[in-house]
Amino acid sequence: MPDTPPEGFATPALTVDRDVLERNIGRMARYAATGGFALRPHAKTHKCPQIAELQLAAGAVGLTVATIGEAEVFAATGARDLFIAYPLWLDEGKRDRVAALAANVRLSAGVDSAESAQRLIGTGALAVIEVDSGHHRTGVQPAEAGTVAKAVRSLGLDVEGVFTFPGHGMAHDPDATPTQVRLHAARDQEKALAEAADSLRAAGFEPNVVSGGSTPTAALREDGVISELRPGVYVFNDAMQVALGSCTIEDVALSAVATVVSVPAPDRFVLDAGSKTLGADVNGWARGYGLVPGYPGAMITQLSEHHAVVTLPLDTRSPRLGDRVTVIPNHVCNAVNLADELLVVRDGRVVDRWPVAARGANA
Amino acid sequence: MPDTPPEGFATPALTVDRDVLERNIGRMARYAATGGFALRPHAKTHKCPQIAELQLAAGAVGLTVATIGEAEVFAATGARDLFIAYPLWLDEGKRDRVAALAANVRLSAGVDSAESAQRLIGTGALAVIEVDSGHHRTGVQPAEAGTVAKAVRSLGLDVEGVFTFPGHGMAHDPDATPTQVRLHAARDQEKALAEAADSLRAAGFEPNVVSGGSTPTAALREDGVISELRPGVYVFNDAMQVALGSCTIEDVALSAVATVVSVPAPDRFVLDAGSKTLGADVNGWARGYGLVPGYPGAMITQLSEHHAVVTLPLDTRSPRLGDRVTVIPNHVCNAVNLADELLVVRDGRVVDRWPVAARGANA
Repeated sequence: MPDTPPEGFATPALTVDRDVLERNIGRMARYAATGGFALRPHAKTHKCPQIAELQLAAGAVGLTVATIGEAEVFAATGARDLFIAYPLWLDEGKRDRVAALAANVRLSAGVDSAESAQRLIGTGALAVIEVDSGHHRTGVQPAEAGTVAKAVRSLGLDVEGVFTFPGHGMAHDPDATPTQVRLHAARDQEKALAEAADSLRAAGFEPNVVSGGSTPTAALREDGVISELRPGVYVFNDAMQVALGSCTIEDVALSAVATVVSVPAPDRFVLDAGSKTLGADVNGWARGYGLVPGYPGAMITQLSEHHAVVTLPLDTRSPRLGDRVTVIPNHVCNAVNLADELLVVRDGRVVDRWPVAARGANA
Repeated sequence: MPDTPPEGFATPALTVDRDVLERNIGRMARYAATGGFALRPHAKTHKCPQIAELQLAAGAVGLTVATIGEAEVFAATGARDLFIAYPLWLDEGKRDRVAALAANVRLSAGVDSAESAQRLIGTGALAVIEVDSGHHRTGVQPAEAGTVAKAVRSLGLDVEGVFTFPGHGMAHDPDATPTQVRLHAARDQEKALAEAADSLRAAGFEPNVVSGGSTPTAALREDGVISELRPGVYVFNDAMQVALGSCTIEDVALSAVATVVSVPAPDRFVLDAGSKTLGADVNGWARGYGLVPGYPGAMITQLSEHHAVVTLPLDTRSPRLGDRVTVIPNHVCNAVNLADELLVVRDGRVVDRWPVAARGANA
């Protein structure tokens, strides 16, 4: 994090510190290489072909995406191997789009029911069975993976392996520490994927991929069953990851730069970055609506669409009207999705502008 | 709200029921006309020139916007009278943009300090003094309005009047009912604006405009000091307004249409609309992350970027995989800002597509 926010552009805006970005990409790449994991970063965090290119150049085997629309953007900008980590339900239009993608790139897609797999028939996409490792969102129970794989193969589809997302490693638990929650989710993930892989083998499948994910659990891998990691947030990090202890504040590459537009009271100032810039995410681990590293002890106590109300501790000096202030969003994926472009900063100066090419590609 | 979600487009998508939209616009226009208020709807809710046109055709005196970027979009599409209800801090680039706007439309802008007013000098924009009526965001104390007005006039700027936003009329208070909170904020607003108008008069100014706002307080006006209303959400309404009692579910014009992508357990199903479609807003009055009117008692208990996990009451039948389900976002302004276009629906069919022309116009 630079001490002085950069100038020369209108606020609010999102800036990316290029050195920190490259350090984050390099660190995760080395971690994966050392551990013998394939790295398939989730591109929903950055939605940006220039960053995907850096990840692939650092050794990523391909990209993970969340939607067909994201896959289209990254396929059009050079990615050759894409995994849509989502249990797609294909209507006719989406079926045609998946088939067009699979004709051009190696494409795999999530499946958590035979009914949804049926709609993949003939598209050329490989099926990866999703299992629930404790997040209780999508995915079959690990012990059912083999049964689903058989049903999927009986439809004529290729089964590539299994995947899970241990999202409960970010959930707030008032009775635990963040580290306990992360460790717990990482162990749940190992256990679920081991059980799912066994279930596949018992059904006659040798999984090509056993894929786990998430930035807060990525570095907690034990020697085990996982062959592939799908972290997303690590490229930028955010206030949630700082609160979870997955990174330090020096590892945060993306900031919102805002201007002080009002100082209505000695203990309160107002910035021009609201929920339409930062996103409205809250999480019990993170304090307020984002971090304000330039003002230790400050807290964003109120967030409107275009206002962040920052409350200062006693005896802290307020910034002046017109000062630029840096804010670290709580959840960087949602903040990036609100912007048309990222301002790339090196040594405190804007050196490039990268479009958020897959912004809003929800369908 | 139509009972059956429309078909013929990829999900997730935002639909607008044209009949409900027009009814909402007409109702607020009649309410304002009957009460003798000027109506200046806040266009940050819809960001859509087609809807602004309907509001102006129904008698709105002009539009309210939150940013210079929004003002530019609406000026370019025909609006002649715009109020930027925000205490702008103009750097050189923004100063030029405001001057260009004021050369083409009648432009007024919020001011809550002499320092920020100074930067409006020479732009041609009129200054409207913002007062804090209890939301404790931006704005001067009502009794200070006259002093600020004098300082602003001494800079050579025209003072148009005073405005406030009673946003605390939406804040959750566990010790009150929503109606009590709304009434309380409406009274705070009347009191603050009356005091501010008196302060202006004592300083030698007759305010041309005494402007109040917000959908939950709009219909709670007493005979009083307010000359202009600036509600925004009323065109669409949302789950928050339903919870606050400002509208019924039949008054909700905008919905997210989503597809059931997973039914992992009998009491749980998963939709393809997450926080990148609905926004991540929560509020103590509203239950969960949005309303699911087709499934009474259902609650969105978990929201990821591309998943809404809906939990059903006991003994409720789940939808089937592939079914379309309608979700009412908690906060419609943030949901609209995530979409590139709104699908306009009449009698259950898509009849038009309107671009969210000012999407992301934060600066």
